[in-house]
Amino acid sequence: MEKGSRSLPAGTLIESPEITPDELQLAVRNHSMPLEALRYDITPVGMHYLLIHFDIPALDMATYTLSIGGHVRRSLSLSLDDLMARPATTIAVTLECAGNGRARLAPRPLSQPWLSEAVGNAEWTGTPLRHLLDEAGIREGAVEVVFTGHDRGVQGEVEQLYERSLGIADAMRDEVLLAYAVNGRPLPPQHGFPLRLLVPGWYGMAHVKWLRSITITDRPFEGYQQASAYHFRTTARVAGAPVQRMRPRALMVPPGVPDFMSRTRFVEPGVHVIVGRAWSGEAPVARVEFSDDGGQTWAAASLDPATSPYAWRRWTFRWDARLGEHELCVRATDAAGSSQPVEQNWNLEGVENNAVQRVRVIVGRPEQQQPPADSL
Amino acid sequence: MEKGSRSLPAGTLIESPEITPDELQLAVRNHSMPLEALRYDITPVGMHYLLIHFDIPALDMATYTLSIGGHVRRSLSLSLDDLMARPATTIAVTLECAGNGRARLAPRPLSQPWLSEAVGNAEWTGTPLRHLLDEAGIREGAVEVVFTGHDRGVQGEVEQLYERSLGIADAMRDEVLLAYAVNGRPLPPQHGFPLRLLVPGWYGMAHVKWLRSITITDRPFEGYQQASAYHFRTTARVAGAPVQRMRPRALMVPPGVPDFMSRTRFVEPGVHVIVGRAWSGEAPVARVEFSDDGGQTWAAASLDPATSPYAWRRWTFRWDARLGEHELCVRATDAAGSSQPVEQNWNLEGVENNAVQRVRVIVGRPEQQQPPADSL
Repeated sequence: MEKGSRSLPAGTLIESPEITPDELQLAVRNHSMPLEALRYDITPVGMHYLLIHFDIPALDMATYTLSIGGHVRRSLSLSLDDLMARPATTIAVTLECAGNGRARLAPRPLSQPWLSEAVGNAEWTGTPLRHLLDEAGIREGAVEVVFTGHDRGVQGEVEQLYERSLGIADAMRDEVLLAYAVNGRPLPPQHGFPLRLLVPGWYGMAHVKWLRSITITDRPFEGYQQASAYHFRTTARVAGAPVQRMRPRALMVPPGVPDFMSRTRFVEPGVHVIVGRAWSGEAPVARVEFSDDGGQTWAAASLDPATSPYAWRRWTFRWDARLGEHELCVRATDAAGSSQPVEQNWNLEGVENNAVQRVRVIVGRPEQQQPPADSL
Repeated sequence: MEKGSRSLPAGTLIESPEITPDELQLAVRNHSMPLEALRYDITPVGMHYLLIHFDIPALDMATYTLSIGGHVRRSLSLSLDDLMARPATTIAVTLECAGNGRARLAPRPLSQPWLSEAVGNAEWTGTPLRHLLDEAGIREGAVEVVFTGHDRGVQGEVEQLYERSLGIADAMRDEVLLAYAVNGRPLPPQHGFPLRLLVPGWYGMAHVKWLRSITITDRPFEGYQQASAYHFRTTARVAGAPVQRMRPRALMVPPGVPDFMSRTRFVEPGVHVIVGRAWSGEAPVARVEFSDDGGQTWAAASLDPATSPYAWRRWTFRWDARLGEHELCVRATDAAGSSQPVEQNWNLEGVENNAVQRVRVIVGRPEQQQPPADSL
């Protein structure tokens, strides 16, 4: 913003519910998934959430190469054709930003101001990473695999390529892919064209886009996005736990119709089938519950069968809408026993805030517009 | 937002540069085009800007019908197959939200808080509307064509389907299409699936998505989106001029690399070719000028040939970046003599604010991250 605004560092705690001009700059670039898109099992690409730290790089498929090296027996340099000629796997994977829910925290850590819908579920096609690591031959003493993207910028006052690492065991899991297609089409630029990492079950920061190189290392990676960012901690005195797998969450398609500005929902009286999706990166979703009184009382929703071990599951609830104002809530519990909290999951970076969704609805109808003169 | 926030009506003038929680709800749904996407002549669909007043409707291509009626000799009911069997035209069209630039106004009218990038340029395929209007036979005394979408909600305290009208002469122009494809693929849900109106040269509000019916009327349409919204006025005492064609605007791809939070740009010293696009809905772009001193002095940029009468034009400028801080600006002037203002174009609804883009850059480099141990 050109006038009258000051820039505060990311992570500054903001007491006011008002969003700063710097947060707005991020919000207009990085979009979440409109909640009505929860009606689709597979999210159309343009509605899938996006979080891009720096700029979308301009890469050329014809000259693209991926380097694999470091603590290996032989370094590899692979074109996109090389990668596409290898065994391909397609899996539906739910991806969620680790910062989903951040803007609902009070105080709010300054960063991308997500509400609750930084998520999407797509079918990704790629080749398993483990075969390539086997081919390169991981040497004894290797501890991590560092993934470097082509996206470059400044964060934490350090200029960097976006980089994240995985431990060897995590990197060797069958479901970890180098993906070159989404929903049956080549990756669009904003989703990592021509090649991205996919780490099913993990929050979005692990799925490095625009892959430039993969480096096997004999010591832990200390880069900014690994060692400084993406930790859950409530005080700066501790390092905190690294953010990894998605905490359980359920979301609903808000019923009825919205008010343009407030997004308050207007719903007709009677029975409505409320539809949504639920996921967890830690264990299968075991239970989804619905509340129409702001989370004071809960009733079990119906869960559809899982379509993929890494994808969200559809759920439904038959809700009898009575006249008046209601606050609808939904919460998921996974097979490991984790359940969504009713209150905020506060922490210094605003990550893993999987507090339950709340949707304000008014049962009854506002004044209607007259149809056009000479209407059908 | 569930806590501590009050909802103010759209249009309320906000003095603070801070964004309200209601504005944030709109910003996380409706995304603009990341400015680096100005590098593409045709915007990939998922990066094209989106403004959706209510919810994205769920429509079924198999049962979809479009009704054309009202002040005509014979009403028509058309399936998507009927429409796709008719003559098809493909044109590149730049679409921009009328509210683009709104969040840069002071005070700021409460609504979707766009910065400067609510734009995109896509190739739309559809059938010319005029043939269908000829087939229906517009009766004498007809004055307008009303386009009704399937998207329903509340705005201005009135429940409504989204509806806009065009005068008969505007509706009969050759380039006005009923579009069912974008960039060679069926429309995605968020862009109006299965059918939308396209009114090349006009701001986005005219291009009604999810078309449900077309009604020819013998009197002016008085619906909310036509008679109340989308007027340029600086005082509530006048009705103001209806918003129609896009005012001239040029935007640049910000050079260098960004800081994550402030989006300040860091640029290496030396010559950089600055690239951008310029458009106007009123007349062809005649001139683009560049400034590196915040708009005090200007130099002519090079303009590439037009690729479509309704699409933006690429421009370039060779900029010699010297050490220090600079404010880069660009402005377009069209053949009708309209030029972008250096100061805000203030009005009550925050429409048509085509004040020049400003990009803050620091020439020089910040500290760099060490590459991973064992790196290539």
